[in-house]
Amino acid sequence: ELNIERIISSPLEHHCVKHTVEHLSQYVETILLEVDETGKINLNQLKELCEDKSKKTLVSLMFANNEIGNINPIENISEICKENEVLFHCDAVQAVGKFPIDVNDIYFSFLSGTAHKFHGPKGISFVYINGDNIISPLLHGGAQERNMRSGTENVYGISGMAMAFDKCIQNMDKRKEHILMLRDRLKSGLSAEISDMQFNGFQEDGHFLYTVLSASFPQHKKSDLLHFNLDIAGICASAGSACSSGVENDSHVLEAIGHDPNRKTIRFSFSHYNTVEDIDFTINTLSKLYQS
Amino acid sequence: ELNIERIISSPLEHHCVKHTVEHLSQYVETILLEVDETGKINLNQLKELCEDKSKKTLVSLMFANNEIGNINPIENISEICKENEVLFHCDAVQAVGKFPIDVNDIYFSFLSGTAHKFHGPKGISFVYINGDNIISPLLHGGAQERNMRSGTENVYGISGMAMAFDKCIQNMDKRKEHILMLRDRLKSGLSAEISDMQFNGFQEDGHFLYTVLSASFPQHKKSDLLHFNLDIAGICASAGSACSSGVENDSHVLEAIGHDPNRKTIRFSFSHYNTVEDIDFTINTLSKLYQS
Repeated sequence: ELNIERIISSPLEHHCVKHTVEHLSQYVETILLEVDETGKINLNQLKELCEDKSKKTLVSLMFANNEIGNINPIENISEICKENEVLFHCDAVQAVGKFPIDVNDIYFSFLSGTAHKFHGPKGISFVYINGDNIISPLLHGGAQERNMRSGTENVYGISGMAMAFDKCIQNMDKRKEHILMLRDRLKSGLSAEISDMQFNGFQEDGHFLYTVLSASFPQHKKSDLLHFNLDIAGICASAGSACSSGVENDSHVLEAIGHDPNRKTIRFSFSHYNTVEDIDFTINTLSKLYQS
Repeated sequence: ELNIERIISSPLEHHCVKHTVEHLSQYVETILLEVDETGKINLNQLKELCEDKSKKTLVSLMFANNEIGNINPIENISEICKENEVLFHCDAVQAVGKFPIDVNDIYFSFLSGTAHKFHGPKGISFVYINGDNIISPLLHGGAQERNMRSGTENVYGISGMAMAFDKCIQNMDKRKEHILMLRDRLKSGLSAEISDMQFNGFQEDGHFLYTVLSASFPQHKKSDLLHFNLDIAGICASAGSACSSGVENDSHVLEAIGHDPNRKTIRFSFSHYNTVEDIDFTINTLSKLYQS
C-alpha cells in the first residue's frame, strides 16, 4: 500500500483536484507551489521539496490549465519526480486528445483523463496507473477491472470514450490547425476592437492549451453584465470554470495569478465544430457592448 | 459522521456485498446470521443482536437472493432495526422493478439498486439514502449529487435507468404473470422428465424472486457437463452467480445452505422476453441429456 505523507500541488489545479487535496490535508501534509502572475509554477521550489526524502510524497500537477490554458513543464516535473522517487499524478483532463502524450516517453505514476473533454460521452473517465504502483482500491465488491475498481462496467461509455479518443488522435493536427486559427482570430479581433484587452496566462512559444482563451476585459459600465450579455446573444462562454458557472467572483485560478478583480475575465472554449462566423459574431457582439 | 462499529449480514448476500463486508471486517466487528437449509435467516438471532446497543450497528441484508431466489422478511428486519436504532442497508438489486417497494412504507437507511438488473443500461446504479443519515462521501472533488458523489454524471445512463424503471413499474403485473407461467412450466417440466429433481431455496407461499429458478440436478454421468451442454445448445444459464461464471464449484450461497456437492445446480433466469418455446426447448435438452 502507498502511504503518502505529503502532497505537493499548485493553486492552479482544477477545483476537483483542489477540493480533493483540501480534503486529504486532514490526513497528510499538503503544499501548494508558488506561481507567478502568468501562472507559471516554481520548478526550483518543486525540486527542493522533492529532494527532501523524509516523507513519502505525491506530486499532483495538471498537464494544462482549464481556465487560463497554461501548460505545465511536464517533462521537467516528471524528471524531478522520477529522480527523487516521488509519485507523480498528472491531471491530463484538458490535454488528452489534444496533445500527443506517450506514457512510455514521460514517466507518470498516474495520469487521468475524461471522455466528455474530448467529445466522448459524459460520465466516463480513465486513469492510467503505472505498473510500479500498486494502490488499494477505493471501491470493493465484484473485483472488476483487475480488482482496482469494483462495479459492473459502463461498457457503452467505455466504448464511446475509446472511439472519441481514436477520432481525436486521427484528426489531431487538422483540428488543432482549425482551432488555432479561430483562437488567433478572436484574440486579434478583440484586441483591435476593445482597447486595453488583456489575456491571462502564459502564452508565449505557442505552448498553451489551444482550446481555451482567457480574455480579461477592461472595466466598463457594462462589464459586470458581460457574461449575461453573451448568454442573451446565444454565445456560450464561461465566467470561470464550468462547474462554478453562475458565480460571478473571480475563480481560485484568477485569484492565484493576481487578476485585477475590477476587470472581467471570460473564458472562451473552442472545438473543431466552431466556425469563423461564430468568432466574428462574438467579436461583433462584444465590440458593440463596449462602444455603447 | 456514522462511526459503524458492527456489521450484521448473512452468508447469502451477493458476493459483492460479501466481499465488501469481508474488507470492512478489518475495521469493524462483522457477524453473519445463521441460515437454515432453505436459506432462511434467523430473525430471533437478528433481534437479540440488535438489542445489544453497546455498538453502533449496520444491518446489511438483501431483499431477494440472486441465486436461490429467497426473499428476506424485509418488513420484520426493518422493524427490528428501526426499534433498536440500527442502520439498515438493503441490497435490493434483484427486487427493484419486480416488486413494489415504497421507502415511505418500510424504513430503510439505505437501499441500493442497479439498472442492468431491470433492463436498463449497464454501469449505472442508485442508492437511496434516508435523510436521517448523513454519510461522508467516498469520492471527493466536484461536489456533484449534493456533495455525496463527486464526478461528472453519467446522464444518459441515469436517463436510461429512469426509463427502464418506469417501464418496469407500468408493466410489473403483466410481466410477473408471464414470467411466473414460464417458471412454473420449467419447474414442473423438469420434475416430470428427470427423477429426483430438487429446487433450492424457500419457495412456499408464492413468496420468492420469480425471475430465477435454482434447479438442483441429481448426480449422473453427464451432470458434470450440464452447464457446458446447455451452453452448446444455446441456452444461457448460470452455474453460480453471473460474476463467477466458469467456476464449477458450488457458490458460497449453495455452500451456506448445505447443498450436496454431488448434485449440480443450474440457476435459470427469466425475463418477459422469454417464451414458452424457450422453456420447452430447455426441458427437452435436459431431458435428453439425462436419458442418454
